Amino acid sequence: MSTITRAETHDVRFPTSQTLDGSDAMNPDPDYSAAYLALHTDAADGLSGHSFVFTIGRGNDVQVAAVALVADRVVGRDVEALLADLGGLWRELVHDSQLRWLGPEKGPIHMAIGAVVNALWDLRAKRADLPLWQLLARLSPEELVDLVDFRYLQDALTREDALELLRAAVPGRAEREQQLLDEGYPAYTTTPGWLGYSDEKLARLAREAVAEGFTQIKLKVGADLDDDIRRLTVAREAVGPDIRIAVDANQRWERTEAIRWVGALSQFDLAWVEEPTSPDDVLAHAAIAAAIAPIPVATGEHAASRIVFKQLLLAGGADVVQIDATRVAGVNENIAILLLAAKFGVRVCPHAGGVGLCEVVQHLSMFDWIAVSGTEDDRMIEFVDHLHEHFVEPVVVDGGRYRAPRRPGSGAEMHPAPLVEYAWPWS
Amino acid sequence: MSTITRAETHDVRFPTSQTLDGSDAMNPDPDYSAAYLALHTDAADGLSGHSFVFTIGRGNDVQVAAVALVADRVVGRDVEALLADLGGLWRELVHDSQLRWLGPEKGPIHMAIGAVVNALWDLRAKRADLPLWQLLARLSPEELVDLVDFRYLQDALTREDALELLRAAVPGRAEREQQLLDEGYPAYTTTPGWLGYSDEKLARLAREAVAEGFTQIKLKVGADLDDDIRRLTVAREAVGPDIRIAVDANQRWERTEAIRWVGALSQFDLAWVEEPTSPDDVLAHAAIAAAIAPIPVATGEHAASRIVFKQLLLAGGADVVQIDATRVAGVNENIAILLLAAKFGVRVCPHAGGVGLCEVVQHLSMFDWIAVSGTEDDRMIEFVDHLHEHFVEPVVVDGGRYRAPRRPGSGAEMHPAPLVEYAWPWS
Repeated sequence: MSTITRAETHDVRFPTSQTLDGSDAMNPDPDYSAAYLALHTDAADGLSGHSFVFTIGRGNDVQVAAVALVADRVVGRDVEALLADLGGLWRELVHDSQLRWLGPEKGPIHMAIGAVVNALWDLRAKRADLPLWQLLARLSPEELVDLVDFRYLQDALTREDALELLRAAVPGRAEREQQLLDEGYPAYTTTPGWLGYSDEKLARLAREAVAEGFTQIKLKVGADLDDDIRRLTVAREAVGPDIRIAVDANQRWERTEAIRWVGALSQFDLAWVEEPTSPDDVLAHAAIAAAIAPIPVATGEHAASRIVFKQLLLAGGADVVQIDATRVAGVNENIAILLLAAKFGVRVCPHAGGVGLCEVVQHLSMFDWIAVSGTEDDRMIEFVDHLHEHFVEPVVVDGGRYRAPRRPGSGAEMHPAPLVEYAWPWS
Repeated sequence: MSTITRAETHDVRFPTSQTLDGSDAMNPDPDYSAAYLALHTDAADGLSGHSFVFTIGRGNDVQVAAVALVADRVVGRDVEALLADLGGLWRELVHDSQLRWLGPEKGPIHMAIGAVVNALWDLRAKRADLPLWQLLARLSPEELVDLVDFRYLQDALTREDALELLRAAVPGRAEREQQLLDEGYPAYTTTPGWLGYSDEKLARLAREAVAEGFTQIKLKVGADLDDDIRRLTVAREAVGPDIRIAVDANQRWERTEAIRWVGALSQFDLAWVEEPTSPDDVLAHAAIAAAIAPIPVATGEHAASRIVFKQLLLAGGADVVQIDATRVAGVNENIAILLLAAKFGVRVCPHAGGVGLCEVVQHLSMFDWIAVSGTEDDRMIEFVDHLHEHFVEPVVVDGGRYRAPRRPGSGAEMHPAPLVEYAWPWS
């Protein structure tokens, strides 16, 4: 038996706004940041559980305060009991009657619950001596559904539906795991497409992306239609007709504006249109998806909970589900979302980039391939090539594919040095 | 010219869980709390702007941290410039590219923006020597629409739509203001209906409510169907057939469960069914409303933004719009919601209770009557009789009606003593 002895938090901010990495129509100057958590125990193994919530600067201190508040709920508790019932802990934290007033199931408290849950998953994977994707992919269908809270989902997905999906994916798990280890998981890259880059930089990075083996790139759009047309022309010329180009409006448009703007861009053979309007506007997403079909609508990086994803799927507002590693309440809620997507037959292409989002979210897609959807067909994980060096196991993307991580844990652990070097406030 | 010199914050918590005041199916033991803000200036008038975010206990410290962070954005700035363009300030704060990552437009940051905006409204009303309702009701239609951000609303409500509604309500403003001053605004009471109360206490308080002049009471339901039937029988017998009884499930049900449960309660002639399921589930609200009609569905106290209200109205998921004084980003966003409700012809019956919610939200309903919807027909403000003594101008509810407040300001200012006496952590 061991006990959680301490919750260590850090407010870490990288000055990315100085280079316009990450600039888009809604986020001109993000400072990629992490509200970082490490849960320590008194076990002889010396293992600790790491996680973070990704933010883009201001407010990271409030997110750290939320993480510390929620983490305090597990300090002093029995580690083995917590790790044996992470579904129970999820329910306890998410349905805490006082905390939920500040959401419910959205915003800093919900994301903080995700950080605490994810730190425990990191610890559980380390104790199992497995990378998280492999730990999850080896759980039984019954163990997996016990992790999921079906509250508010049952008009779209019941426990029985989920069990059926998971059981159907049991045959072939071993083959798919081997295929993943051999070939990796498809990636696409957003590195060329930030709004702040010059046309020359865009063209150069787009060509490099193709040379590196990517089959899809993504461009930020939505600030100015003429600019978008010019930049898409540059990009299409750079990559040729066979590489897919997705565009991301980062919530910039009204419903009718989105439909009109995408119409003007449709000549460029768009792979998808991402976040066309407010991420909370399920009805507008559905109307836009209907109007711009067959161009798919992609969304999810700002969808606050499984309840929003459920509605997007019920209404036909998401043709591509973009889970995020730290937006919802952790691994458990992302399993619920993967199950919802599988139920609706919709592909999952995670949002990543930022700080460590690639490192963490890859585990979920790899688990999905092996044990939920059973396929990687037409699916890919976003890749942005920055800040990976701060992680204990940086992602490896090779030939346009994520190589499966092998180190035990969830991928969230950072080196100690950047936690100090980039501590906020900057000195 | 004067300057905001200081943002004073307080974490104030009342131990209401000890008496089961405020107990419902989702909130068994709330400690009614306020993340309280006072903005001070160097003006010779000595006036300060007060506001708060209401929470129910744990997490109030995180909410205070969010309020302090956002308030810091106005410290050092010119008061007159801020007060002259509160619409501009709203846009600046809500669309701050880094802060909005933590929502967007939901949760502690969004509510903190509401606190800062509302403190400035309090100050503006005090400087104008008017209660807030009267200040707002004397603004021109053009001044009012300038306060509203129509982003993400324009598929339901444009600036032109809003101007038309407001201009149509200009005739008769003076008569309605006089009628309000003479007669007050209708109230209903939730005081009898908390789940934690015995049947005897429920019956006694229900009879007292009728004797005090209320024409509607509200009961908490959703924990146990047999209990609900028994308590509704007790309440109906206590109040007779002519008093309206609303029920509030506080998000307890799934979609189909809500429809079944309400069916079993419909024999009691329900005035409305409040928060039948997740407040984020627009589609489920619409399905429930269609299934239980003509019993109205009421919701809104946990609707995070005007975007959620817009969808509820577009989908037919809210027959009664329940604005809350501190859930959205302040007065400006509540004006947007009042305009949306007016556009759809849906009545507004605010959520109140808690700490100071009655004191603040009454101003919005009174403004709505005079200058937006032009009617108080079938509308009423929730009233719960506790914690009013801590406010500089406690609400006065008389003969089942809120008397119009006369003191300059927004109603949010608390006495200094409870800020100290109930400061968290409790000693």
